[in-house]
Amino acid sequence: MKLPVDPVENLVTLIRCPSVTPAEGGALAALEAMVKPLGMSVDRPVFDEPGEASVENLYARFGSEGPHLMFAGHTDVVPAGDEAAWSHPPFGGVIDNGILYGRGAVDMKGGIACFVAAVARYVEKHGAPKGSISLLITGDEEGPAVNGTVKLLQWAAERGETWDASIVGEPTCPQALGDMIKIGRRGSLSGRVTVSGRQGHVAYPHLADNPVRGLLSLAEALLNPALDSGTEQFPATNLEITSIDVGNPATNVIPAKASFAFNIRFNDLWNAERLKAEIELRLRAAAEDKRFRSGREEPVQFELKWVGNVSPVFLTHDEKLINTLSASIEAVTGRTPELSTTGGTSDARFIKDYCPVVEFGLVGQTMHMVDERVAVADLEELTRIYLRFLEDWFG
Amino acid sequence: MKLPVDPVENLVTLIRCPSVTPAEGGALAALEAMVKPLGMSVDRPVFDEPGEASVENLYARFGSEGPHLMFAGHTDVVPAGDEAAWSHPPFGGVIDNGILYGRGAVDMKGGIACFVAAVARYVEKHGAPKGSISLLITGDEEGPAVNGTVKLLQWAAERGETWDASIVGEPTCPQALGDMIKIGRRGSLSGRVTVSGRQGHVAYPHLADNPVRGLLSLAEALLNPALDSGTEQFPATNLEITSIDVGNPATNVIPAKASFAFNIRFNDLWNAERLKAEIELRLRAAAEDKRFRSGREEPVQFELKWVGNVSPVFLTHDEKLINTLSASIEAVTGRTPELSTTGGTSDARFIKDYCPVVEFGLVGQTMHMVDERVAVADLEELTRIYLRFLEDWFG
Ligand SMILES: [Zn+2]
Ligand SMILES: [Zn+2]
Repeated sequence: MKLPVDPVENLVTLIRCPSVTPAEGGALAALEAMVKPLGMSVDRPVFDEPGEASVENLYARFGSEGPHLMFAGHTDVVPAGDEAAWSHPPFGGVIDNGILYGRGAVDMKGGIACFVAAVARYVEKHGAPKGSISLLITGDEEGPAVNGTVKLLQWAAERGETWDASIVGEPTCPQALGDMIKIGRRGSLSGRVTVSGRQGHVAYPHLADNPVRGLLSLAEALLNPALDSGTEQFPATNLEITSIDVGNPATNVIPAKASFAFNIRFNDLWNAERLKAEIELRLRAAAEDKRFRSGREEPVQFELKWVGNVSPVFLTHDEKLINTLSASIEAVTGRTPELSTTGGTSDARFIKDYCPVVEFGLVGQTMHMVDERVAVADLEELTRIYLRFLEDWFG
Repeated sequence: MKLPVDPVENLVTLIRCPSVTPAEGGALAALEAMVKPLGMSVDRPVFDEPGEASVENLYARFGSEGPHLMFAGHTDVVPAGDEAAWSHPPFGGVIDNGILYGRGAVDMKGGIACFVAAVARYVEKHGAPKGSISLLITGDEEGPAVNGTVKLLQWAAERGETWDASIVGEPTCPQALGDMIKIGRRGSLSGRVTVSGRQGHVAYPHLADNPVRGLLSLAEALLNPALDSGTEQFPATNLEITSIDVGNPATNVIPAKASFAFNIRFNDLWNAERLKAEIELRLRAAAEDKRFRSGREEPVQFELKWVGNVSPVFLTHDEKLINTLSASIEAVTGRTPELSTTGGTSDARFIKDYCPVVEFGLVGQTMHMVDERVAVADLEELTRIYLRFLEDWFG
């Protein structure tokens, strides 16, 4: 039986499945067919949640002993956008001049295609590894992510699965293959502050209370001073005011309410609870500060609401995992990867509760864009990096 | 023929005409019928403008010689709002316990009813005055005001009408009849500032440029320091930020644009041109100020647009007009009116280009509200004030 040793062939197969979240699109079935010849056991659990689409997921395992390495990722992709703007059909898998085009080429069917090829080459070369390799693949990473990695981890853990290390195959490289590994991620915390005043006519400001003035001082208090200046492993915590909303169309009316939304990406100097306390402290202090108010005696009236889920900050300390991966990258590419904690959140934040996790994959420049694409040469190199990693990590 | 000497009867007649802008509602016809027995000549010009409702207006004159006093006002009213919430029907003209209820009772069918009664009593007592009295009444003061007072003044001026003084009968008294005359009005100027940045993901702030930070500094620059601290005749110029609008629903996206709207009520230290220059100067200075920007080298990119029409500031210096009116008020009510320039804009800003103008009418507390109402006793007192004024001004 033919083993899936060619990452390009694997990726073309996966790209041709239109698996736009939450559709399975044939991608998990294709992946199952791809890994079956390796002798992997495959499960395809489907998860549901009231009000959300059901989502298919895949868990495959090779071997039954430790140590146990998990490769994690997703086959779902974001929509193609304006298909007419693509040089080649987004679900065509066309190779043109050494470049493979398609939605998911780098984010992250490409990473899966390479890892599967690396496992196949390992088996061809060495037979079964002394330990286990599993694939934890969701179809709900780009969507609401409620029926994806979180539930798949729980599902596997309930069946007794434990892991010693994990690689997430997201596209982590900013410029060239091998230039960056993610060894942690900042946390994320969002909130909205609503300031209440008293509506009135602009010609009678003493009868009204314009909430905008209070809003400006509360917003300023969150922006200054900076929350910190970064740590050895993390950039500075950053707060962005993402929206301010009054929506008053009348030029002669002082509005009754004004609100602003903010998001914080925080480093390992904080956890969510201490950060919330700091934000509340700054808001209360600014609300009481008379400098900001034109003679009013009362504090600014405001309400703070935390919005959405908190993503925790995390940093992986597993030296074997990080060093083996770095050395594999250097051996294949000649590049020394930066050990980074930058960028957005990823499913690694869920996996870190089960085992040490790092992220490493292709160059992400075209992800989510029209003409998402990957060099065929990069697919071959990433396969060789993953193979080298498997050899050294199990060796 | 019966002369319209009773302000209560006059007002009940006018309130029963549902003249919600732009509907004439029978109100100008009723007024014409009311003043015809006095021997006034009456014209009812209708003005049109593409895209706007046609509006009926009324100009009536008594006498042909100078001096010429103009009484100005409007018969149109704002909508009744929730009719079920009224104690008495808004267009019923019901008197209950000495109080007359109805939309327009104080703003400003009441003022017209009293002035007409005052003219009728003058004629009954003294015959024709040594001079002329005219009524300049629009049906478009509460609406877009494009087919109202501005055109009516032009129309009359083109026919050779000139005036020596004008009283606008808007409700000027905050608490008790006679407590305030308006002898001028602040100007009004509105604008919107739009700050441009670069959209991006909150996790990569260095690749984006959040316009909110620039917006906060530009807004702060308009609010502080205060534009002035007032003059002998005017309160301090006041700037209100009436809206801030970003409208970004995504908590993980840095928006591309942010804008805010403002309105300034300015006193006689300014004119519109100098005030615009000051605002532009403050915005440019704040945009260049590096303190407000987190290490960015470029100035804040912004665009300023002036919105709507500028209302000029004005102050009436006609001592005969002001003193005669004040003395009449004192003689009838015992109160010394405050000579004020507070409050919003009014049609007086158009009349001041033709002749000196002051504003004096009923107590405005219930204007535009459910249960708009006036004490019958106030109608009688205002009629006596206007009569006393006519006697002294022509005397
Ligand atoms: Zn991804
Ligand atoms: Zn009015």
